Amino acid sequence: MLLTHPPDVRYLSGFTGSAGALALAGSQAALFTDGRYTAQAKSEARGLRVVVDKKPATVLALEWLVQRKAKRCAFDAGHTTVAAVEQMRKAVPTGIRQKFFVAADGLVARLRQVKDASEIAKMRRAAALGCALFEDVLQYVVPGTTETAIAAQMEYAARREGTEAMSFETIIASGKRSALPHGRASSAKLPRRGFVTMDFGVLLNGYCSDMTRTVHLGKGKEWELDVYHSVLEAQNAAVAAVAAGVSCGDVDEAARSVLKRDKLAKWFSHSTGHGVGLEIHEGPRIAAKQEQKLEAGMVITIEPGVYLPAEFGVRIEDMVLVTAKGCEVLTAASPKAWIEL
Amino acid sequence: MLLTHPPDVRYLSGFTGSAGALALAGSQAALFTDGRYTAQAKSEARGLRVVVDKKPATVLALEWLVQRKAKRCAFDAGHTTVAAVEQMRKAVPTGIRQKFFVAADGLVARLRQVKDASEIAKMRRAAALGCALFEDVLQYVVPGTTETAIAAQMEYAARREGTEAMSFETIIASGKRSALPHGRASSAKLPRRGFVTMDFGVLLNGYCSDMTRTVHLGKGKEWELDVYHSVLEAQNAAVAAVAAGVSCGDVDEAARSVLKRDKLAKWFSHSTGHGVGLEIHEGPRIAAKQEQKLEAGMVITIEPGVYLPAEFGVRIEDMVLVTAKGCEVLTAASPKAWIEL
Repeated sequence: MLLTHPPDVRYLSGFTGSAGALALAGSQAALFTDGRYTAQAKSEARGLRVVVDKKPATVLALEWLVQRKAKRCAFDAGHTTVAAVEQMRKAVPTGIRQKFFVAADGLVARLRQVKDASEIAKMRRAAALGCALFEDVLQYVVPGTTETAIAAQMEYAARREGTEAMSFETIIASGKRSALPHGRASSAKLPRRGFVTMDFGVLLNGYCSDMTRTVHLGKGKEWELDVYHSVLEAQNAAVAAVAAGVSCGDVDEAARSVLKRDKLAKWFSHSTGHGVGLEIHEGPRIAAKQEQKLEAGMVITIEPGVYLPAEFGVRIEDMVLVTAKGCEVLTAASPKAWIEL
Repeated sequence: MLLTHPPDVRYLSGFTGSAGALALAGSQAALFTDGRYTAQAKSEARGLRVVVDKKPATVLALEWLVQRKAKRCAFDAGHTTVAAVEQMRKAVPTGIRQKFFVAADGLVARLRQVKDASEIAKMRRAAALGCALFEDVLQYVVPGTTETAIAAQMEYAARREGTEAMSFETIIASGKRSALPHGRASSAKLPRRGFVTMDFGVLLNGYCSDMTRTVHLGKGKEWELDVYHSVLEAQNAAVAAVAAGVSCGDVDEAARSVLKRDKLAKWFSHSTGHGVGLEIHEGPRIAAKQEQKLEAGMVITIEPGVYLPAEFGVRIEDMVLVTAKGCEVLTAASPKAWIEL
């Protein structure tokens, strides 16, 4: 087997560099990388053979596999480009090339969906830091501030706490921009009155957090309060539906049916959530008709939203740990009740 | 032609979302995305038809191409996974499927290498901001500070200036860690004496900056000064070699030959530089034996380094604009002479 997707390589080897190939042949394994990462790979991938050479890491890995008499090689079709496969094919002798590569999608990604105790501990810390950042940033959410200035405060505080990075580009979407589900912080100034959606996460010790809160500047109109409370009820319903053995589609439906009842489902234009871990978007997909069953140890987001074009949007998101009988909300420290600033 | 790599889609359409497919058929073009991006795509991709539906954007794009009687479709093999191609194939009628897809690597990436005046203006601003950040951050480079705290100050200042993000994970590598070419800022504390390598960039209005400076805490030893000045001479030699018509391999050799002369080339374990623009790593590659010729309007990095394992490392990097007769150093505002703090 050949693994090249960095989070998969990290998961199995400990190596955190951006370019490496991990080859597995029977009970043997070796890590291949390039000259930028020699010292780092040796210190991080303890107990593994580390090989650095001028050739690309995947080519080295395939030569190693062929030397060990491999006749087939599973690779991750979902993270290997057509051009990369071409290069990989050329590293294999023509005699065995034709049947050598076997597309095997997401084998390690599947393993990664269920977190072990040490991963859960890291995700708990990442989520807790997210909540602390939200509490801290509220002081900066005032009319006239730019969205990027709020992101700056949040990201600065995160860095001071030792995060490697944000887990994705911080979304601060205010006023009409809150109707953009992916409204990255812009130079727009916060209005005197209106929603501010904050969707953000940290990368701490390799693991991502992800949460969203939507607050309101000034006094909310009845219609705004109604939409907010529909989204909140939908979000709570989906959280309540989470438990090992429940299908992802049923969790999605729990949120969606509340919004259907309130004639808002049309404006809920994305899925209810996704797995999170070493990557910000992992399996499982919490979306309509997904038959995959939740398992204890999975960490997923629950994030329904309603987006009324050119008016406003509301999204509320928690990160939850699936347990045998239900779930534990890792971002419970941040209140979800209506906040008026 | 089907384009899905986000920087390529942005380059041709203006759409900045993370998921979209741009289809080109004769003189017609259309942009396909998903429900998260409806409003954003319509506002950014002015003049283009924007289609949003439940199906994946690439499937929609292919159906549109087939409706327009396309018999072939170029796609970017370097950014399309094996799994994505499988999905794409299924969106095309079986009758024309076999010869439909034509691997066409980096057609838009090639166009993007040469920047136009408005792009150069943006890159100049991004580079200038990088220099301002370096000047500002020196006050925090003191023994006992953590590497992440320095990164935090730099990233906070960048965000306050309206950047979207850093263009890559900030490298602050101090003491022995400076021997790691990709030593991302860690919880390590700056030593009383030793090098601190800072490699960082901003993403401003979509364009990346990239620069590196290495400073010294405490008084440098003769050997450290020698290595620093070899790297500096190598870096200056490569900058002096840059001009339209010169091969990338010759620019690399200009740096490498100085380090060879000083018996340090063995420790220069990466290439001399790379193009930069909408992405932090673009073509051309400034590496040994690369025959590609530089062209006026390309923006590249020149960043030789020497890494002595478990001792220390030095890297110096400028971002330069290739001109007809030479180049303009976009990061010239940051001094490269030995800095002792």
